[in-house]
Parts: sequence; C-alpha cells; structure tokens
Amino acid sequence: MREWARFLLTYKFALDEVNTKLNILNEEFQFIHDYNPIEHVKTRIKAPESIAAKLKRKNLELSMASAGLHIRDIAGVRIICSFSTDIYRIHEMICRQDDVKVIEVKDYIKNPKPNGYQSLHLIVEIPIFLTSGVERVMVEIQIRTSAMDFWASLEHKIYYKFNASVPETIGRELKETAAIIASLDERMLKLNEEAKSCRV
Amino acid sequence: MREWARFLLTYKFALDEVNTKLNILNEEFQFIHDYNPIEHVKTRIKAPESIAAKLKRKNLELSMASAGLHIRDIAGVRIICSFSTDIYRIHEMICRQDDVKVIEVKDYIKNPKPNGYQSLHLIVEIPIFLTSGVERVMVEIQIRTSAMDFWASLEHKIYYKFNASVPETIGRELKETAAIIASLDERMLKLNEEAKSCRV
Amino acid sequence: MREWARFLLTYKFALDEVNTKLNILNEEFQFIHDYNPIEHVKTRIKAPESIAAKLKRKNLELSMASAGLHIRDIAGVRIICSFSTDIYRIHEMICRQDDVKVIEVKDYIKNPKPNGYQSLHLIVEIPIFLTSGVERVMVEIQIRTSAMDFWASLEHKIYYKFNASVPETIGRELKETAAIIASLDERMLKLNEEAKSCRV
Amino acid sequence: MREWARFLLTYKFALDEVNTKLNILNEEFQFIHDYNPIEHVKTRIKAPESIAAKLKRKNLELSMASAGLHIRDIAGVRIICSFSTDIYRIHEMICRQDDVKVIEVKDYIKNPKPNGYQSLHLIVEIPIFLTSGVERVMVEIQIRTSAMDFWASLEHKIYYKFNASVPETIGRELKETAAIIASLDERMLKLNEEAKSCRV
Repeated sequence: MREWARFLLTYKFALDEVNTKLNILNEEFQFIHDYNPIEHVKTRIKAPESIAAKLKRKNLELSMASAGLHIRDIAGVRIICSFSTDIYRIHEMICRQDDVKVIEVKDYIKNPKPNGYQSLHLIVEIPIFLTSGVERVMVEIQIRTSAMDFWASLEHKIYYKFNASVPETIGRELKETAAIIASLDERMLKLNEEAKSCRV
Repeated sequence: MREWARFLLTYKFALDEVNTKLNILNEEFQFIHDYNPIEHVKTRIKAPESIAAKLKRKNLELSMASAGLHIRDIAGVRIICSFSTDIYRIHEMICRQDDVKVIEVKDYIKNPKPNGYQSLHLIVEIPIFLTSGVERVMVEIQIRTSAMDFWASLEHKIYYKFNASVPETIGRELKETAAIIASLDERMLKLNEEAKSCRV
Repeated sequence: MREWARFLLTYKFALDEVNTKLNILNEEFQFIHDYNPIEHVKTRIKAPESIAAKLKRKNLELSMASAGLHIRDIAGVRIICSFSTDIYRIHEMICRQDDVKVIEVKDYIKNPKPNGYQSLHLIVEIPIFLTSGVERVMVEIQIRTSAMDFWASLEHKIYYKFNASVPETIGRELKETAAIIASLDERMLKLNEEAKSCRV
Repeated sequence: MREWARFLLTYKFALDEVNTKLNILNEEFQFIHDYNPIEHVKTRIKAPESIAAKLKRKNLELSMASAGLHIRDIAGVRIICSFSTDIYRIHEMICRQDDVKVIEVKDYIKNPKPNGYQSLHLIVEIPIFLTSGVERVMVEIQIRTSAMDFWASLEHKIYYKFNASVPETIGRELKETAAIIASLDERMLKLNEEAKSCRV
C-alpha cells in the first residue's frame, strides 16, 4: 500500500510541475498577445484499481514497474481552449520546452475516433526533482476545445453506464452531435478570424 | 485613489465570499449526487475606468456612493455549467441561502437578447464581515453553459473591437451560431436524459 | 462510512468559511494599517479514529450525534501571529462578526497550562449554507504567536511519543523553554512599541 | 513600463517554479519521514522603485540589463522552518537538484551580521521555460527558523523607520534578543533530539 502511495506521489508531482509550466506559458502569452490560449486546466491521477484493471486487460504483470512502463496515462492533464487553432499553438509551445520529451502524438482532431471523439493527445516525459535526485515521469496531455470537452464528458459517462455497449440509437446520436460540434467550432473560428481581419 | 482602492476591496471580498459559497454547494452536490453542477467559476472586478464610463453613460454622478448604488456589476461572478438544467439548479440553490438576497433575475435563456446572447443573470446582495462590522455588497452572477460562454466571449470581443457597431454580416453570423448553440445544448441535454433513463 | 464522510464534509466547509473570513479581516487590516495581524493560518479536520478515541475516553456514545454535540474541536483552525497583542486584536475582530457565535474562550496566555502551554482558545459556531439549508457548525480556533506555536508543536510531538508520560527531565526542560518564550515574546513586543513611539 | 512589466514577469515565473520545487521536496520528505522540514514559504518580487534605488546606491546603470546582472534579489523566496538543522537539510536538497545552479552561499547563522541577523542566504539560477525558449533567472533564497524570521521582520521594520540610523538603545536591545533567539533555537533543537533518542 505504502509503496503504491509513494509511486503515485511521483505522478502527482509531475502534474504539479506540468501545471506550473502551463500557467507560465499561458500568463506569458496573455501578457504578449492579450489573449489566453488556455481556458482552463484539469488534472487527475488514475485510481490504483483502474491501473490494475488496465494492466489485467492488457495481460500485463500487476506491478509498479509494469505500470510505470506500460500505463502511460497514470497522470493526466486536460487543457481546454476556445479555438481549435489554440490546440496546435499549445502543442507547439509544449514541444519547444527542452526539458519535456514528447513521446507520442495522437491527433484525434484530424482523425476522429469512430464514435466521434476529438482531441489532441500527447504523451510527454518530464523531469521531477525528488529529494534523492531526478526522475523522469510520463504524463498524458489531452488538448481540446470546450465544445469537444463537453461532448467527451457526456460520451464518457454514457460509455461507463452501458459498460462499453452503448445502445445503437444513443451511439448514432452521439456521433451526430460530435459532427455538429466540429462544424460549430469551425464556424466560431472563422467568425473570429473574419472579425480580426476587419478594419475598424 | 486610496479611497477607491478601499471601495473596490469590499467587492473583492464579496467575490471571495461568493466563491467559498459556490465551492461548498458544488462539493456537497458532488458528494450526494456524484455530479458537479458547476464546471468552473470565473470572477472579475470592474476596472475603475469602466465604472466611471458607465456612470457617465448613464448621466450619473461620478462618486463612490453613486457607483455603489447604481452600478450593480462592479463585482462579477460567472458560473459555467454543462447543461441548461444545471443553470436553474444553481439558481435555486443560491436562492435558498438565507443570507443572500436576490435583488433581480434576468432570464436571457428563456428570452435571449436580440443579438442572440443567452445567460441567466442574477443581482444578489451578500453580507461581508469587515473589521468594523457587516456591510452588504451587490454582486452580479451570470450562469450559462460552456457553449453559451464560448459564444458570449467571442461576441464580447467582436462588440468591443467594432465599438458597438458590429458589421451586419458578422452580426448575422453571430446570431446564427447562437441558434446552433441553443439547439446543440438542447440535444446534448436530451441525450443525457435519454441515457440516464435507459435500463442497463 | 459514507455517513461519516458527509458528517466531516460539513466541518471541512466550516473551515473553508472561517478561512475566507480570516483572509478578509487580514487583507482589510493590512490595507488600513499596513500591517498583518495574521502571520499565517493552518487548518485540520480531526481524524475519525481520533474522534472515536476521544468519545471513548469521555465515556460517550460512539455516534455522529454525540460527536457533533460533545467533540468541539472536530474542525480546528490555528492562527499564528507575531505579537501577543495581535492575538487579542484577532479575538476582538472575530467577536464583532455578528454571524459568528463565540461559545467558549479559554485564555492559556493569562493562565498557562501546568506544562507551560500558551494559546488563546475559542470555540465558535458559524453558519454553513448547504444545498438543503443552513447548518450551524462548531470550530475550535487557537490563536498564538509563532514562538508559542513552535513550542506547542514540539510539546505535542513529545507528548505523543511518550504516550502522555513525558520523562521528568524533558518535562522540566519544556517548562523552562516555555518561560523563555513568554519572556522573549514580551521583550519583542516592548521593542516594537518602543520603536513605534520614537520620533524619527 | 511595459518592458519592465515583462522583465519582472520572468522573475514571477521563477518564483512559481521554485515554489513548485519546494512543495515537491517538502511533500516527499513528509511522506518518507513523517516530518515537514519546511514550515511555510513566502515569496516577493522587488518593487521597481527598490530596484532603481539599489542600482543608484551601487552607482550602476539604470537599465533592465544592468538590473538582471547586478541585482540578485529581484525574486526572493523565504523558507521558514522549525529547527536550524532543517535549514541545512533544505540547503542540501536544493543543491542536489541538477537544474538549479547555486551561485552563492552566505551563512549568517555561522557568522551572524553585526546587528545580530541570522539566516542562510543562497543565490540560485533556475531555468524558466517561456513561449520563446528557456531563460535562466536568479532567485535569492533565505532559509531561517521561525524565531529568526520573527526577529528579522522586527529588525527590518525598525531599520526602515529610522532610515538605517537605529537609536543605540534599540540597536543594543535588538542584538540581545537575537542572542536569546539563537540560544532558544539551540535549546529547542537539543530537546527535540533528546526526546527522539529516548527509548519509550
């Protein structure tokens, strides 16, 4: 128990560190451009039971070493922004940090999941300075617009309620709303750009 | 200068107090129903220049007494939630607090503004306990879904850029997106209720 | 389990509320007098096991009703200040808040405990606004200087290590250091007043 | 004005970063040893006027470049701990962080200032990741016990009131209280060690 608590503590520290980094980027961006690319940030640590379940599902050894190696979303950060252009702007700013190593990028905006899910996912590795020295910790970062986030929360709730076998009518409806959200986000973005380019 | 700083400090305290109250309501609701009606909360104090401009626009005396009496949104709280049903749930919870006096309710969801704006606005008065005794302070509370909030932020930016005279095409486009947002919010709500009522 | 969690949640809310109140008082005092009477604030909720142990020790029924009635320090706030005069100043400011009911005052500064312990203890009752209505919750507030706090932390650690039977030499040493602290606090206070009254 | 605001923003970010690092060290230490070496942390940014005054006093050019190079305490962190042994423990933990460069150490505990002042001062340089890339920023870290901190705050207030020419009687009294504090800190430390080494 205590060993796992310590193991998870390192991930909690990684989230603290990522949070500080994101706040700095956002405040600096706000100062220079008078605009916040980041609307807000949420963090979560995967519960020990969920880690165990995921290891089991993947037929992997149930140990901390195995979890640290194979479960890449033990520490999760969700960044919500207004426009889809902000998503890529934040992605770029993260990549430019030379102490952060980007391990994987999955672009579910260019290629949405079959159910309609949209987000940009990064797996990054960041250094955490502990009393005994440095440790490198993996963090999953999900970047999405607030409309995508709203959809994803609802989908997640429904998925868990039906234990992955979502009724067909509900699945279809989810996919349709995902399409509306994508087109709404695009329209709002165009409107924003149009207004920006207008002479006053 | 110093007198105004002190005047505004009272409004800052009112926001601290409202924030604490909302956190308590949200945490308790989360504990009982395993669901957050409040997604997140933002607060702002009106800048002295904006207070002065508003007094001037309304042909009112430029004094603290006049500001305290006539400018009801010096302290502003914005509550963002997922579903429009949450908006009325939060409204109700605020009304039930017997130290909060609800002075005014404007329902721009049932009756959107001509430009398409949707939100529920409350003016409340709450007691603040200062070193010298209690003072009652007015706070404007805006409650809206995250889709409404996204729209309102964009509209606000455009309105200020064009100094209130928004080009007709952009105005039309804003109104259309407001309608899409309203219908999207309704669809998401129905989907949520449908999923909830399904037997598993 | 769940019932106790909810019971304790109310005390957590009481601490949030007291914290907000103290911050307001401190910020306002700082603004007016350019001086912080409150150095910092710590809060803690009594662990369920400690509540149970205290009920048992007092031969009381082991129930939430009994705990809520008889255990007055379930929610604890510690206010640390620089000078002993600040202690009474804070006490007064708390008493003046007309929604706070002061139930008990124990002045262990005027009358230190036999072991040397010094602090001002208040039991107050404050209203908490829940989703279902208002509830009045008891909170213990301890106010002390940072020197008194340092001593009390050490004494507490020693007391628990020796399970209440502190070796005589250590007990004597503790009492002597308490006396040094009291005289140091008084000297620092005099020095402060002397410097304040000096013409420059 | 704007250029200076941006310049100081970098120092604000450095404080955010140091704060995160210290919280991580303290939480980890607490987890392993069930003891907090850090009681609390305060941060401050030097006001532009104070930076200008210091540059003038040192006959240095009044520019950001000059301030960045010569004023090493623009960003200041104060770490308060219980025992003087904690001071060196924290110092060591900071030194072990391989992204932090310790530029200077001044031990005013082993060698107090003539007026009685005691603290451990470090000048460190830490990397801050901005939108445009990494920047290395200097931060002054002062580590002291809470008794030393109490004394230092009073001395600072008196020093400024008398514009550096503290009346002799007050200066003497300050020096005497500094000596009492040093001996009190030592006695408390011994008492702590004695209690720790006792068999129960």
